[in-house]
Amino acid sequence: MSKLPNVGTTIFTVMSGLAAQHAAINLSQGFPDFDCNETLKHLVGEAMEAGYNQYAPMPGIMPLREAIAEKIRLLYGQSVNPDTEITVTPGGTYAIFTAIATVIGPGDEVIIFEPAYDSYIPNVLVNGGVPVRVPLSFPDYHIDWSLVRSKITPRTKMIMLNTPHNPTGSILTPNDIAELEKLVAEHNILILSDEVYEHLIYDGKEHLSILRYPSLLKNSFVTFSFGKVFHNTGWKMGYCIAPAHLMAEYRKVHQYLCFSVNTPMQYGLAKFLQTPDHYLSLPAFFQEKRDYFLSLMKDTRFTPLHSSGSYFQLMKYDRISDEGDKDFAIRITKEFGVASIPVSAFYEDGKDDHVVRFCFAKRNETLEKAVERLKKI
Amino acid sequence: MSKLPNVGTTIFTVMSGLAAQHAAINLSQGFPDFDCNETLKHLVGEAMEAGYNQYAPMPGIMPLREAIAEKIRLLYGQSVNPDTEITVTPGGTYAIFTAIATVIGPGDEVIIFEPAYDSYIPNVLVNGGVPVRVPLSFPDYHIDWSLVRSKITPRTKMIMLNTPHNPTGSILTPNDIAELEKLVAEHNILILSDEVYEHLIYDGKEHLSILRYPSLLKNSFVTFSFGKVFHNTGWKMGYCIAPAHLMAEYRKVHQYLCFSVNTPMQYGLAKFLQTPDHYLSLPAFFQEKRDYFLSLMKDTRFTPLHSSGSYFQLMKYDRISDEGDKDFAIRITKEFGVASIPVSAFYEDGKDDHVVRFCFAKRNETLEKAVERLKKI
Ligand SMILES: CSCCC(=O)C(=O)O
Ligand SMILES: CSCCC(=O)C(=O)O
Repeated sequence: MSKLPNVGTTIFTVMSGLAAQHAAINLSQGFPDFDCNETLKHLVGEAMEAGYNQYAPMPGIMPLREAIAEKIRLLYGQSVNPDTEITVTPGGTYAIFTAIATVIGPGDEVIIFEPAYDSYIPNVLVNGGVPVRVPLSFPDYHIDWSLVRSKITPRTKMIMLNTPHNPTGSILTPNDIAELEKLVAEHNILILSDEVYEHLIYDGKEHLSILRYPSLLKNSFVTFSFGKVFHNTGWKMGYCIAPAHLMAEYRKVHQYLCFSVNTPMQYGLAKFLQTPDHYLSLPAFFQEKRDYFLSLMKDTRFTPLHSSGSYFQLMKYDRISDEGDKDFAIRITKEFGVASIPVSAFYEDGKDDHVVRFCFAKRNETLEKAVERLKKI
Repeated sequence: MSKLPNVGTTIFTVMSGLAAQHAAINLSQGFPDFDCNETLKHLVGEAMEAGYNQYAPMPGIMPLREAIAEKIRLLYGQSVNPDTEITVTPGGTYAIFTAIATVIGPGDEVIIFEPAYDSYIPNVLVNGGVPVRVPLSFPDYHIDWSLVRSKITPRTKMIMLNTPHNPTGSILTPNDIAELEKLVAEHNILILSDEVYEHLIYDGKEHLSILRYPSLLKNSFVTFSFGKVFHNTGWKMGYCIAPAHLMAEYRKVHQYLCFSVNTPMQYGLAKFLQTPDHYLSLPAFFQEKRDYFLSLMKDTRFTPLHSSGSYFQLMKYDRISDEGDKDFAIRITKEFGVASIPVSAFYEDGKDDHVVRFCFAKRNETLEKAVERLKKI
């Protein structure tokens, strides 16, 4: 009677659990080991003190929606209506689920690139939809648009994007955008773009948010996370942007799923966003971590794959036996005290390229200690 | 292409919006106008300060789950396993949706008593299920079990209960429990019991939580809210209790819907629950409000219906015209400055007994001012 018979415990829970059990340094699940901004915490405390402890309006408090609209204007030159096109959510994962629940019903096909963040496929299944998997190329993790086209059927309802991409760090390119524009012009396909790592983008590259492109945005849900970018993954705060006609449907689901989102945290974030430097400084902050991690990893069995964004660095490892990446990740957690995520966990069929994912959103001393251990392998 | 073509904006948003627009006293949506406990706010602030700002474990932090189990032991004499039978959720509405999403698929019938909290039916519909409405008797709002039995079919998957009941304040009786026990012994039916008003129960009555009855609990999801009882509806914190085999399925949905819940608020609540008086004092606290409101309302056009619990008091009004309760509620908001909820909004077919719902979880002065105005009608 299970609606998700093949679903186990998420790999993030498994590996973080294993890390705790073996007192390993946890570079698996994507969260920082440094704290969020003190000012931001105080702003939330002040909101609680001021008595902002009852229901927020269903789509979110207006000051937060306005601050989000302002940020979008500043970063992507796009004007988004806070009244009808923005809904605050309890995190990015929820924002994604709700978009899928809004439009996907029995038999609807959803194109999902693999490797895929592990909620996407169960989200489609629990709503009766049919995930249609399209592999990204290896080892570049680019989109093969002719392959995408070969998967389009009259039942194709939506295509899911994720840029910067978890776990690979690949990002949408101008060519991808052009291909996408052609695709949605020819077919009646919705887009769900998961952009939770929007500010975590490196080497001077630009985040090609779907928000920049009116021709795409008009058919899109675009989802974001505060936790991933402001170092408070445990606050579970995010939002979804969509044109008014899609957002109206989204809110029908949201208003009966969760109704509204944590009020004092919304007030805190609304004030925090008033200072654009709080997000404009993020690419440099995370790039420094990424570069430091890469420099430390130079003399190890691990070779970095190319990455342009996100919390994560994929590493191909010199195999020491014929064990799969999952067994390898478990073994280095237990024997060497460093937890990572085996990338095969992001493939439905467990495709194994002998690659593991490290989260480098950690204090420098954590990265140093971890790499010291990884050098022993 | 809407999955919820007949869903509008929830009546709570409509009436709270109207109240704001007309600067009316808002006795409509269910939330207190007094603040939550200062200690509780400080506990959350301390958790943020201490750095509890990253992902909580998927089912909730263990200290909170243990505190919940302890409360259940104390109040209902039931032993619930924090490891496998408790999951913390972003509010009671989410806890309910997730239970429905876990077990209801296309064609599954769910028995729902009317008047019904307005999320229940859309929650069933969005999962492809079929709501089967059973009216409660008027004006007592009791369950007619022979009517329930007449609605059972081979497709009946679940029966939804709500005790204390929103909007009527009716509660499950020992006879209801006996009938329910017979029903689930004879048929393979799950129970979803929404008990968000668990401590708001009056006149020395007992809350007959499904948690008390192992023969029922073994087929049940039971959902709770911290916001409703601790005066912080805006924190969106709640939980679900279910036996391990059902909870395992529930967590499969939850882990990909929201993954986890606000960490610092969980730590704050875990500590707050260490003092049982924080919840043991609630029935008397709310009864005083209810009784005060009833005494003030004596010389008005409104006659109270019988109520044993919840935030709410239903009132039958002396009709001054043939307008429906919705128009009446709108008119007294606009003309007399007091917002209420028309009970017809809780019926799919808009059944209108000329009854409105007032939320009395308000400061005494708010209740006094509101009743002064209501006296003018
Ligand atoms: C929601 S737990 C997983 C965190 C995450 O995004 C990741 O590790 O990929
Ligand atoms: C989630 S908004 C509605 C609050 C409530 O429970 C009610 O007013 O009935």
